[in-house]
Formats: sequence, C-alpha cells, structure tokens
Amino acid sequence: MKGNSYDTEDMIFALATPWGTGALAVIRVSGGGCIQALQPLFSRPKALSRAASHTLVHGQIKDNESGEPVDDVLISVFKEGRGFTKEESVEISCHGSMAGVEAIFKLLKRIGMRPASPGEFTFRAFMHGSMDLTQAEAVMEIVASESQLAHSLALGRLEGNLHALIEEIKQIVLQAVAVIEVQLDYAEDEISGDVDFPYAPLEHAQARIETLLATYSVGKLYGEGARVVLAGSTNAGKSTLFNLLLREERSIVSDVHGTTRDFIESKTVLDGIPIRLYDTAGLRDSIDTIEQEGIRRTKRLLDEADLILLMLDGTEHDEESAARYGALLEDPRCIVVWNKTDLTVRPPLPGSFPLSAKKGEGFPRLRDEMVRRLRKDAKRPGEHDIVIESSRQRDELHRAQEAIDQAIDLAHQNVPLDIVAVELGEALDALGSLTGEVASSDILEQIFSGFCVGK
Amino acid sequence: MKGNSYDTEDMIFALATPWGTGALAVIRVSGGGCIQALQPLFSRPKALSRAASHTLVHGQIKDNESGEPVDDVLISVFKEGRGFTKEESVEISCHGSMAGVEAIFKLLKRIGMRPASPGEFTFRAFMHGSMDLTQAEAVMEIVASESQLAHSLALGRLEGNLHALIEEIKQIVLQAVAVIEVQLDYAEDEISGDVDFPYAPLEHAQARIETLLATYSVGKLYGEGARVVLAGSTNAGKSTLFNLLLREERSIVSDVHGTTRDFIESKTVLDGIPIRLYDTAGLRDSIDTIEQEGIRRTKRLLDEADLILLMLDGTEHDEESAARYGALLEDPRCIVVWNKTDLTVRPPLPGSFPLSAKKGEGFPRLRDEMVRRLRKDAKRPGEHDIVIESSRQRDELHRAQEAIDQAIDLAHQNVPLDIVAVELGEALDALGSLTGEVASSDILEQIFSGFCVGK
Repeated sequence: MKGNSYDTEDMIFALATPWGTGALAVIRVSGGGCIQALQPLFSRPKALSRAASHTLVHGQIKDNESGEPVDDVLISVFKEGRGFTKEESVEISCHGSMAGVEAIFKLLKRIGMRPASPGEFTFRAFMHGSMDLTQAEAVMEIVASESQLAHSLALGRLEGNLHALIEEIKQIVLQAVAVIEVQLDYAEDEISGDVDFPYAPLEHAQARIETLLATYSVGKLYGEGARVVLAGSTNAGKSTLFNLLLREERSIVSDVHGTTRDFIESKTVLDGIPIRLYDTAGLRDSIDTIEQEGIRRTKRLLDEADLILLMLDGTEHDEESAARYGALLEDPRCIVVWNKTDLTVRPPLPGSFPLSAKKGEGFPRLRDEMVRRLRKDAKRPGEHDIVIESSRQRDELHRAQEAIDQAIDLAHQNVPLDIVAVELGEALDALGSLTGEVASSDILEQIFSGFCVGK
Repeated sequence: MKGNSYDTEDMIFALATPWGTGALAVIRVSGGGCIQALQPLFSRPKALSRAASHTLVHGQIKDNESGEPVDDVLISVFKEGRGFTKEESVEISCHGSMAGVEAIFKLLKRIGMRPASPGEFTFRAFMHGSMDLTQAEAVMEIVASESQLAHSLALGRLEGNLHALIEEIKQIVLQAVAVIEVQLDYAEDEISGDVDFPYAPLEHAQARIETLLATYSVGKLYGEGARVVLAGSTNAGKSTLFNLLLREERSIVSDVHGTTRDFIESKTVLDGIPIRLYDTAGLRDSIDTIEQEGIRRTKRLLDEADLILLMLDGTEHDEESAARYGALLEDPRCIVVWNKTDLTVRPPLPGSFPLSAKKGEGFPRLRDEMVRRLRKDAKRPGEHDIVIESSRQRDELHRAQEAIDQAIDLAHQNVPLDIVAVELGEALDALGSLTGEVASSDILEQIFSGFCVGK
C-alpha cells in the first residue's frame, strides 16, 4: 500500500457490486467536486448539477472525446454530509455487463478520478465521523457474512451495540481514574495512610471485558466460518458425503468453485456456521509432477483445516491404509468416518463414525459431531448477543485487561497511585484504540486495507 | 414456465446484481401498490410513502413480525410511468451479503410478493410500451456482452438503431402495398392490361434485408462469442497455451471457473471476440468410471466447439498419436498446433502451426489464424454498425425476405394482385413480429424466459 493511498482529497471510484454479469452494476464515486467532474461524461449535465441530495438522475454516460454513448444509467446523488462517506458522492447504476463497467472506468480515470483502495469508502465514512471503528469493521463483517446468524451479529455491531458496550466499560475505568486523581490531588495535604482504591468498579470492568473476550472464538467461528477438508482415497465415498453436506441449508450459499484440478471447494452452512468444504483429490497417487503438485496442495489444505473428515472405505480398510493415514488418524482435528456400512458387516475402527453416505445412515450423528467439534462446546450465540470476531478487537481487549490487572496488582502492593494511574491510562488507550478514537493512521490503513474494494 | 408466470398484476422481486459477496446488492421490486406493501418492512414507512419519484429513502428493513432490524438500506423510488418497468417500483440497495439478501427475500415473500421470472422486468417494460422487442432483446444482449465491441453493438440496438432500420424497411413495403391497393380499387373500372407493379421499392427493401441478414453470423460471433477447446495429451503444453490466450485483453474478462475436475473453463477476448476457452483433461486415460465420465464430457465439449486447438508435442509425435487423433486431425474446425519448437528440430506436421508455447514464438500467427477462422473471413464490425445477433430476428427477416421474393415472382407471372398482396402482408407480419408489434403472448414468454432473472 502506498503512503498516500488513503488520501481523502482524491475523487475515487470502484465497482460496489460483485464482478460478473447481472441485470445491474453499481459504481461508487466519492470525493469533493465529483459531481462537477462527471458532467462532461453525462448526457444531462445540468440536471446532474442541479440534482438535490438523495435523488436519481436518468441519462447516458458518454465518451467526452468522441461524444458516443457508453451506457444508459441512473445516477444517485449524495451531497456532502449526506451519503455513506459523508462526502459529495454518486452511485452510477448501469447495465450489469463487465465490458460496459470497464468502459466507464476508463472514462472516470480520464477525468482525473482514481480506483479506490480496499475499504476506502468506509475509511472515509470513519474519517468524517459517521461511524466508530467497531462499526466500520462491522460493515465489512456484514458483507462477508455467510450465514444469517453471522449477518445478524454483525448488524448488531453496525448498529453500535459493541461500541456502546465498550463506552460503558470505558466510563467505569474513567470514573475509577477520577477517584484516584482526587486522592492524588489531596494526598499530600489531608489524606494519609490507606487510600480508598476503586477495586470494585475495576473488577466489574474486568468481568465485562472477560465476558466479551470469551465471545471471540465463537464470534470468529460464526463470522469467518471454518475450513473442513474431506480426505481419503478416491473410492471411499468422499464425493457422496460432500454432496450430503452441501444439501444442508443449501438455500443460503451454493457456489461451487473448482479452483484447480486438485480439489473442489464449496460453501455450505452447518447450524449457522459458514463452512468452506474441500474435497481433495486423494492422497495416494503421485505418478507425475502435476499430481505431486496436487498432493502438495492437499497437504497445505490439511494444514489449514479446522476439521478433517478422513473417509475410510469400510469394505477395504486394512493395515496398508491404516499405515498410509497414520498421522491423520492421530490428528486431534480429525473425525474418522467409517463409510459403506451398507456394504460391510466389519466392525468400525474404534472411535470412528459409522456412515452409509449413500443411504444417509449415520449422517445426522456425524453432522452433530462436526458442529460440536467446531464450536468446541461453546453455545450457539443468540441473534442479539454482542460478540466480537475481529482479532484486532480481541488484542485491544487483552491489552486493556492486562493493564487493569496490573493496576489492581500494584494497588494491592501499595505502589504510589500515580504509577497505578499510568496503567489505567494504558487501559483507556486500548479501549480508545478499539473504537478508533486514538488510532494512528498506519493502524487505520492496515485495518481498512483488509476490506473489499467498493466498500 | 407456468401459464401465468408473466402476469403483470403481481408484485415481483429479484436480485438485480450478481449473486455473490460485494459492497452492495440491489433488489428490484415492481408492481402496482408495491410501495404501500413495503411499508410494514421499513423503519420509515411515512418517508417511503411520501417519497417523490426518483428519490432515495434511507432506513432499515425490519422483520414485520419480530420488529428486528434486518439491514440498513437505501430505497430508490420510481412512481408509475417513470422507472424501467413503467410500473410503480423500487430498488432496494442493501449490504452485499447473500445471507442478508436471503433474509430480505423471505420478508418480501411474506408480504405477498413473488420472485420474478427471467426477463420479467424487461417484459413489463415492453408490455407498458417503453421499448420495442428489438430493444428488449438488446437489454439482455448488453448485459451478456463480454467485449466492449459487443457492448457497443448491443447499446446501438437499445438506442433503437435496429428498430429504426426495420421501420424504414416496413415503410417501403407498406408504400408498395398502398400502390397495389390503389390499383386493386380501380382495376375493374379504368385500368387494364399491364399493371404498374412496384418492383423497384420492393427490390430496395430486399437489398436492405439482405444486408442486415448478412450481419448475423458476425453479430452472433461478437455477441455470443465462440467456444474454443484445447485438446491433446497432458504433456503437450496445453496449459501453457491456455495461459498465453488468457493474457490477451485480459483486463476485460478474467474469471476462471473450473466447473468439474475434467476441464478448466475460462473467458477471454480475442480481437473483440468473446472466447470461452476449455482446457480438457486429455483424451488418453480411461482407468476407471470417473475418468470415463470425464472423457464423455471432453467429447461433448469437442462436439460443441467452434474451434479446436489440437496440441501435438513436437518432440514426441509419432504414428501412435497420429492414430489417436486421426478424426480430430481431419476436423475442419481443428487447428493443429505443433508445440515445443524450442526443443525439437523435427519438421512440423504439414498444415500445422509451429509454436513454442513456452517462449511465445509463433503465438501471434496462431492467434491471427484463430480470429480469421472464427470470423470466417468476414470483416470486424464497426462500433456503429447495425448488426443482429438474435436467431429470432434472423428467422423473421428470412420470413419477410421469402414473402417479398414470392410476391415479386408472382407479379412477374401476372398473378392477380390481390394474391400478391397476401404475400406482402406476410412480409409485414414478419417485420412486425420482429419489433414485437404483432407477437403473441406465447412467443413473448418464450423470448423473455431466455433472459436472466432481475432483468
């Protein structure tokens, strides 16, 4: 990322809708003066310049050099202080053809606009004070949410429930600091001996931070989802189980991408948990270099998996395959599935889950075990729970927690209160960083650069 | 398709932007009363009902039963007669999360709206007279366009250039009919012997139809694109050529989809021609049933190809591989590529294209040959040319052409003018069907059902 990539003086643009063919595509444009800048590209420049905020102007985007029409569009106008970024901005709703979008991009560049960096629209909204940092992060989390539960949780954060909770905790710490400062002011004159340290409110703050921190693992699970890898030899029935898993809550996410020939990736949802499911090409064959590359990829998939389903063919499992899958069988992330119970009477491997993927027998039990393992025994959150899913937020909460711990320890040791107050200052700084009050521009750029373009 | 699926009385909705994660998604809603129907789902029902046409209302979609917020949205309001469909309609711009879109869909169904059928928004625009049939088809052709040239050609049709041309031809035929009718009216009384048949204007009409019909093959090529299949054994260097081809004009379309393990599909553009490129898994191996299925798919790909690139490994080509590819080598759609010229001094197979895919040597010549073969020696159309790409339009033009031919023939044979006039009526009917003046509802449904949903 370049140093000035989040300069808020530029006029920026980006495709806000997914890349691909659709009825409509929306191009976002933001930055002071952008409406005037657009006039040479628009068939009705006066209508555009006269348009009030929150109105739509119909017309054509045209090539300002050749005068040729490029597309029929509707332009949504947002005056300064009114739209998402709080800057003067427009949204160009054009036909959903990527060739048309490319043609408009070329014209926008020609009139001096630049493509937006990831998250730059939300960054500008944040910089102009229309949201705090937890809400800015929630914008991205909503967009990325892949289950309705994840969406509800992130919407709660966008509405400010996390922001409000952090503010409450901060107020408690601030009041504790005020109590200490009063004593510091008067300590030399009147008060002597035991100080009246605000243990109770700080412990209350700690408890609330603790509760919030405890939501991280489940928040992350529901927000970011989990990676589940199907391993085993090609004839063990992996594809059949793959399809069974895809059928779960399939209405929500149903894209199937085969990114390489080595594995098939698909998305599904298990009990509200977004799942990325990988069906690997099998671990066995290594005839030529292409397949060796495939095996390397499979191994990397296994390394990154949150859960591995190792499919054994119950009709064929023997010493040789036990040896082949030795390391996997011991992996704590691995659920061993003993498939083809409809075809064999052989007893399942101890600890494995018997399944007939073909007939679906044993599947509900396997699915429940998958959810239990992924959730690590935590409860499923309610739609209105306040949870965090950002590791940045977790780290700042940890920093606040440690500083308050340290302050309480020091107070117990009767360390002078001005030293204790420094620790509480650190805690306030961490909470302020969490909401973005005190974040440096470097940190901000790092956060927003993780967003998608157009947001 | 059900009989009443294009009923214009219903309130309909659809996602108008591509399915997938993005900053924004737009849900289209159309149908009389839809603004009132939406009020229970919106946090600011009065603002929505008071909104003027072409204004934007910010608020929240909420669950009308639980009262819970579902998403932050901007609603674009279009009053009857004003928007794309010319019906009362709105566009809901929400966060681009599919989980959120699903949640809104559920609520829209609950208040009595139904999911739109493919092309149903454009169908309504057509039914309410805001465009003729060639323009309605152009809407779809613009959306589907995969090169900037295809986009320009379709935009010209949307702006009505094809409609205007058909109207001109129709006027010529109508005037010819008028000339004939005058003679029919007076024939019995005053005029006798040779009739003054309007040969010249009808031949002029024929010439214009002929010119337009001649654009079909190139219009179809640029509009729908072509399917190019790479065949040959796995080590012949197919993937290297695949990647070389993808690098051409890559900025425009860059999606790579691997739809199955058997082949990789990708899109590119060659000299304005949208190309679907398929890299097949090789024709050789047939070890188990899965791979036999793969070979069946490869064969189907080859059957449907517009152009086949058969890659031969110049270092290894022998009698055996010549025998294996015998049928392909004879196929008129096949360009034989003699690859690895950097590694071998063996003379290329007669008629083949020598290439070093690795070094790029010979690639420009191969690419030019591909374009030449696909265009079948036709010229590349200019951006402002009027071309047709719809087989329906071609068929109606053929019908008009044949009817006028027949009329001219009959006139030459001195067949009574009232019989000749019947043929000219048929020509007018064909031209009217082309623009949708006289189309039956069955035909209309058939046309619009080929559109995408949301359009």
